[in-house]
Amino acid sequence: MKLRHVIESQQFTVPALMELFNLADGMERIVARGGTGDYSNRIMALLFYEHSTRTRFSFESAMSRLGGKVITTENAIQFSSVMHGETLEDTVRVVANYSDVIVLRHNEIGGAARAAAVSSVPIINAGDGKGGQHPTQALLDLYTIHREIKTIDGVRIAMVGNLADGRTVRSLAYLLGKFERVKIFFVAPKTLQMKQDIVDYLQHHNVWFTEEEDLRKIIDEVDVVYMTRLGPLEREKTDPTRFYIDESLMKFLPKKSIVMHPLPRANEISPEVDSDPRAAYFRQTRNGILVRMALLASVLDV
Amino acid sequence: MKLRHVIESQQFTVPALMELFNLADGMERIVARGGTGDYSNRIMALLFYEHSTRTRFSFESAMSRLGGKVITTENAIQFSSVMHGETLEDTVRVVANYSDVIVLRHNEIGGAARAAAVSSVPIINAGDGKGGQHPTQALLDLYTIHREIKTIDGVRIAMVGNLADGRTVRSLAYLLGKFERVKIFFVAPKTLQMKQDIVDYLQHHNVWFTEEEDLRKIIDEVDVVYMTRLGPLEREKTDPTRFYIDESLMKFLPKKSIVMHPLPRANEISPEVDSDPRAAYFRQTRNGILVRMALLASVLDV
Amino acid sequence: MKLRHVIESQQFTVPALMELFNLADGMERIVARGGTGDYSNRIMALLFYEHSTRTRFSFESAMSRLGGKVITTENAIQFSSVMHGETLEDTVRVVANYSDVIVLRHNEIGGAARAAAVSSVPIINAGDGKGGQHPTQALLDLYTIHREIKTIDGVRIAMVGNLADGRTVRSLAYLLGKFERVKIFFVAPKTLQMKQDIVDYLQHHNVWFTEEEDLRKIIDEVDVVYMTRLGPLEREKTDPTRFYIDESLMKFLPKKSIVMHPLPRANEISPEVDSDPRAAYFRQTRNGILVRMALLASVLDV
Repeated sequence: MKLRHVIESQQFTVPALMELFNLADGMERIVARGGTGDYSNRIMALLFYEHSTRTRFSFESAMSRLGGKVITTENAIQFSSVMHGETLEDTVRVVANYSDVIVLRHNEIGGAARAAAVSSVPIINAGDGKGGQHPTQALLDLYTIHREIKTIDGVRIAMVGNLADGRTVRSLAYLLGKFERVKIFFVAPKTLQMKQDIVDYLQHHNVWFTEEEDLRKIIDEVDVVYMTRLGPLEREKTDPTRFYIDESLMKFLPKKSIVMHPLPRANEISPEVDSDPRAAYFRQTRNGILVRMALLASVLDV
Repeated sequence: MKLRHVIESQQFTVPALMELFNLADGMERIVARGGTGDYSNRIMALLFYEHSTRTRFSFESAMSRLGGKVITTENAIQFSSVMHGETLEDTVRVVANYSDVIVLRHNEIGGAARAAAVSSVPIINAGDGKGGQHPTQALLDLYTIHREIKTIDGVRIAMVGNLADGRTVRSLAYLLGKFERVKIFFVAPKTLQMKQDIVDYLQHHNVWFTEEEDLRKIIDEVDVVYMTRLGPLEREKTDPTRFYIDESLMKFLPKKSIVMHPLPRANEISPEVDSDPRAAYFRQTRNGILVRMALLASVLDV
Repeated sequence: MKLRHVIESQQFTVPALMELFNLADGMERIVARGGTGDYSNRIMALLFYEHSTRTRFSFESAMSRLGGKVITTENAIQFSSVMHGETLEDTVRVVANYSDVIVLRHNEIGGAARAAAVSSVPIINAGDGKGGQHPTQALLDLYTIHREIKTIDGVRIAMVGNLADGRTVRSLAYLLGKFERVKIFFVAPKTLQMKQDIVDYLQHHNVWFTEEEDLRKIIDEVDVVYMTRLGPLEREKTDPTRFYIDESLMKFLPKKSIVMHPLPRANEISPEVDSDPRAAYFRQTRNGILVRMALLASVLDV
């Protein structure tokens, strides 16, 4: 698998996704047997225009597991514009001379595509703008379903919480639209339901979905419960127990189903759930390393 | 030597300390012959909830000397709680999926123990809370005495400066209580003398100690002068020359004795002392690398 | 080539410069064939008392290309003086125990020389003070001329923009004074012309130079156009088109000439120039890696 840039999750066809996931599976074996020296001469530059310590850590860990080197700025604003307002394009051209791959977190939608247009090295989009893409998160979510449930075709998933503003659930819904016989339950207060653009997209692709207002009503029908934060305001306005999971509710979740969460969580999952083998949210962060290793390996020339 | 976590200096028995110090001696030979590749696949995550650039630098250097990789956040607050207030426990569980050992600096007493309770990888405590533990500093101080004086049993040490608030002298006094025939001179203004808990501990362990108010009175009787800062306020209130060392006072220090300091120093050691071979405070920072290398090697599985 | 410290560009004789540039040429071959493991046990400490993300990134990339390790503080103020005001000398002595070379960015003129006086490892000056030295930038500029024009003797160069405050043009003029038959055109508004100290130096070394107020008048006579920023205030007061280059002006620049810029640029070079093969400013940043690799290799003992 040879990728040039990783800009948006839409760029991946289903066969490309499966190839990526196979590569991620292989990465686990590499980690287990103590890593590889194949990438020891490669440099990953992290160019972050806004803080995202979690995403940065995950990419740094992934590149380190590949044996490669990392140079980081979590404050690319300082790199670019202190006093002089250098353009993103100029900054990328310079940093491309310092590295073999640039992981870019930009504050504007379309930043990653602009960077890719001028860069002499691969660009990986680590999030661009509030409403923009964060493809590596979407890919690690999908990989977790693939890995835990063994199939994505036919999967039944409840997405719970603030769906209107949740970048992860929006991206995941989009990616699921590429698969067969998927069933999606959008579980949210009416005011925070999934927005029309995704609804239209799913209808256009004949994906079955329904809107719910209480997780308890449908938890026994799903393979995946994808929890997200509700936000403190919403918790006051609605009944938070309808978008909440604890040990007593876990009794209704089928035996081979899983609970996911993009983390950090607030109060939507009781800590008593953590020891349940169906709690997949910490394994999900580990899968993020494997998927990012696979993406880095796919764009790096070794 | 196989350690699981490094949480507090009390966890080390005298034989365990000696084994650690032997390992540290061996680390010097590894550094001298150009390092080792044995840890090249290991990742150390630094998770710092408060700034401590010095401690961070020392751990990064130690891990680099072992050939390993480092991922750092000096701003773990940003990792955990920006907007959402993730618990320490959740953060540690995530970071444990990114690394092979976590070096934790936490802002609350007991933070390291809480982290160890949930972590799937070893935790090394790099300081937790103002009155809490900082075991690696205490161990490097003890190692410096062991290395320079050749014995800890029977050592005579003057601890000088603000002893009431000094974390390093408190921890060192505690560790010395495990050894035989130690004599401690606490040299401080009355208001800044060693606190009752340590005094009680030493009495309980039959350690000889005395309180003094002038270093000049006892400098010819000690093997180690452990200087610390007095604080600007105290310097005004007392006669700072009583807690100060310069070339003229060094004439009274025995030939094989040493001067230590946890650094940074303020004005308590005259720069003219630096060229005296008995000035051990810069060697002390070097010993910190060796002890931290030994600790990392003891917790890492290779 | 064995260097002890890199403190100022004046320390290099012409033969030493040529040896350094040969070494830099060789570094390109090392990068191309995938790096070297020779420096994998060496640690570079970056000790920056003021932010300079660009310089930091460039040094980190250079050390990584050599296979070495990097420990960084971009906030050395925090290392040294939080609460206690440690001297630069003490900080350097400590950091020298953590590393094999220190790259120092200090906020006072002469900081690098002070550090070198006490350090047990080599010091590389990455800029000291506003009016101080930044020798690695000056060396990479000269190397770019050497590499692109094939000769420095006899080179004709226009320096354009704010020459009074421009550290890079001042240093470059100084270094060019060591070569034969150089011709320099200082192109600046009268109030921002090259200062008397450099003028005196060039006269003393019999270097041909002249002052101009419009790049358009002399662009067809030069091998190198070295552009710098004018500053927003000056752009208002003068006619900025006289210190500006675009596609239409490029027609008058000789075929084998080049355009340089220390970057970041503001508006003094039109983006349409970027695709012209004579636009050397992004290659210049790449040359910075090679020169810094050569300097690191010259000071490091392997």
